[in-house]
Amino acid sequence: MAERLTIALDAMGGDNAPRAVVRGANIARKRFPNVDFLLVGDEAKLVPMLKRLPKLRKITTIVHAPDKVGAEDKAAQALRASRSSSMRIAIDQVRDGKAQGVVSAGNTGALMAMAKVFLRTLPGIDRPAMASFFPTMKGESVMLDLGANIECTAENLVQFAVMGELFARMVLGSLKPTVGLLNVGSEEQKGHEELRQAAAMLREGRHPIQFHGFIEGDDIAKGTVDVVVADGFSGNVALKTAEGTARLIADFLRQTFKSSILAMIGYVFCRYALRKLRLRLDPRRYNGAVFLGVNGIVVKSHGGTDALGFATAIGVAVDMVQYGFIASMKREFEKSTGTPLIPEVEEPKQAATG
Amino acid sequence: MAERLTIALDAMGGDNAPRAVVRGANIARKRFPNVDFLLVGDEAKLVPMLKRLPKLRKITTIVHAPDKVGAEDKAAQALRASRSSSMRIAIDQVRDGKAQGVVSAGNTGALMAMAKVFLRTLPGIDRPAMASFFPTMKGESVMLDLGANIECTAENLVQFAVMGELFARMVLGSLKPTVGLLNVGSEEQKGHEELRQAAAMLREGRHPIQFHGFIEGDDIAKGTVDVVVADGFSGNVALKTAEGTARLIADFLRQTFKSSILAMIGYVFCRYALRKLRLRLDPRRYNGAVFLGVNGIVVKSHGGTDALGFATAIGVAVDMVQYGFIASMKREFEKSTGTPLIPEVEEPKQAATG
Repeated sequence: MAERLTIALDAMGGDNAPRAVVRGANIARKRFPNVDFLLVGDEAKLVPMLKRLPKLRKITTIVHAPDKVGAEDKAAQALRASRSSSMRIAIDQVRDGKAQGVVSAGNTGALMAMAKVFLRTLPGIDRPAMASFFPTMKGESVMLDLGANIECTAENLVQFAVMGELFARMVLGSLKPTVGLLNVGSEEQKGHEELRQAAAMLREGRHPIQFHGFIEGDDIAKGTVDVVVADGFSGNVALKTAEGTARLIADFLRQTFKSSILAMIGYVFCRYALRKLRLRLDPRRYNGAVFLGVNGIVVKSHGGTDALGFATAIGVAVDMVQYGFIASMKREFEKSTGTPLIPEVEEPKQAATG
Repeated sequence: MAERLTIALDAMGGDNAPRAVVRGANIARKRFPNVDFLLVGDEAKLVPMLKRLPKLRKITTIVHAPDKVGAEDKAAQALRASRSSSMRIAIDQVRDGKAQGVVSAGNTGALMAMAKVFLRTLPGIDRPAMASFFPTMKGESVMLDLGANIECTAENLVQFAVMGELFARMVLGSLKPTVGLLNVGSEEQKGHEELRQAAAMLREGRHPIQFHGFIEGDDIAKGTVDVVVADGFSGNVALKTAEGTARLIADFLRQTFKSSILAMIGYVFCRYALRKLRLRLDPRRYNGAVFLGVNGIVVKSHGGTDALGFATAIGVAVDMVQYGFIASMKREFEKSTGTPLIPEVEEPKQAATG
């Protein structure tokens, strides 16, 4: 039997909190019977919700947090005022070893800032990156950074490549994942200086990863590589452009099926097959961006998601815990950089919390 | 009756040249009865092709060019060796006033370099940009730069905004086009320094355009703005990611319609409606990127397009000529920058051709 593990949930983060979080936990409970939850948020709201879900209640402990981070709060401000927020207290559960991972649908910038300050980054990593997976013609791939780092050095990109490769190996189960750098052409002389430097470093082979070279935007959906590495600006643009395009085509399709009597009849026949397609492309199936490089498992759920999407994000955290992701990352970077291991959890030194 | 005008065609550029070019001209001939062509390329190949198309032959003059630019040639090298290439000689036709526009499906970098050197940039423009239009939920929008300028200053972005707005007004017929800057969030403090500066300059209102503010990747397909302004790197990533995503979903759809007997039957009923959708999203309908900011009309067709796509690119050039795009651009930038008009066509001073 699988060991029991605990995931902390920021109950107050996201557009549909705390409802989507509590219901999401209830869905995840059935998928992962070995998981307990720490539900961090406003006790007055959470207690009555749990009362109606006795099975969830049995495996859940409420940790009271009087405040929450607003969706529009700036990261620095949220960080300063964080002490009593549900997001911060949820992260503290991981720092203090009371939970093995944390999931929040709250403010991305604040979550990243708190994760960096209170969990610290792993040795050998200068900046954590946001990673997520998405469907391709060949299956699934991972992309990072999705927006945590607007400006990136060549070293940052190389670290992203190594982290992304490990993530693909552990969570997607790719045996020998290939890694590509997102650029505007595949020729060596293309793109920003940092990209060319990063490519040179990856070709050098200090890290034992399968470096494919440069890829272009259309390679993302083709599944040309298992891991797409980009600076946070380009990665964010690519991710959101892909989402927007998918919605546009879905919209056009809906119009198409309503455009004539024949098409409507056809739709009735295809309905079952189309539902499967919709399921395959359902963004809730791909919900849950991971902050790679922080010393703890932090998963960011889309702010607008529902219970089903939140359950997926919980699943990502559970996977990473079960695969021992943090320990593997430490080994990986210790091997390649020679940096010694540091203790799993370190008390942060009052950083920016005054 | 419309005035007759002449478009120069680089007959040897693109994967399917010269066949796709000649056949594309033959399609365009029917759409634009007031257009004559200068077909620039290898006479020995072009003469027999034209023989089989007597109607096209009547309105076409072959201009012999012994060489061509290779798809893999570097821009600087193509420029140096350009004198006898079909691309260069086609551009010369515009510079010398023998044609009002040029269309090429050849090497993008070489075409941009030659256009800049031999046609020059318009007064008030530091760097030309590549622009194209694409389908959105609200109709069509324009995006620039699509890859000509990997690094952009705030001034470059502002100039792109003004050029793109004019293009949307003239070619898409938007009365009061809105303009957005592609970023990773809509808040003022987001993104690169140049983006924030460009936004401040556009808000200042020196140029009389409708500045919407920052937009994100998913706003592109939503049609949130009529003109999407980006640096060439992000613009290229967004364009290609959108293309890749569209192909992925088309691929998934094909699989869906083959996934069961019922779905296959449904497909038969929907076939006509789906064909219309396919037509609506057909990349050949959106073929033809324009080099905005050079002193002459230069349209880049996708290298892999067929005759139909090439005809669309010719159509873009014809539109721009008929709307008097170059003269309008000069007026626009004279108004806003106070730069005096220069003569329409200027002899370049032996730049980089030695």
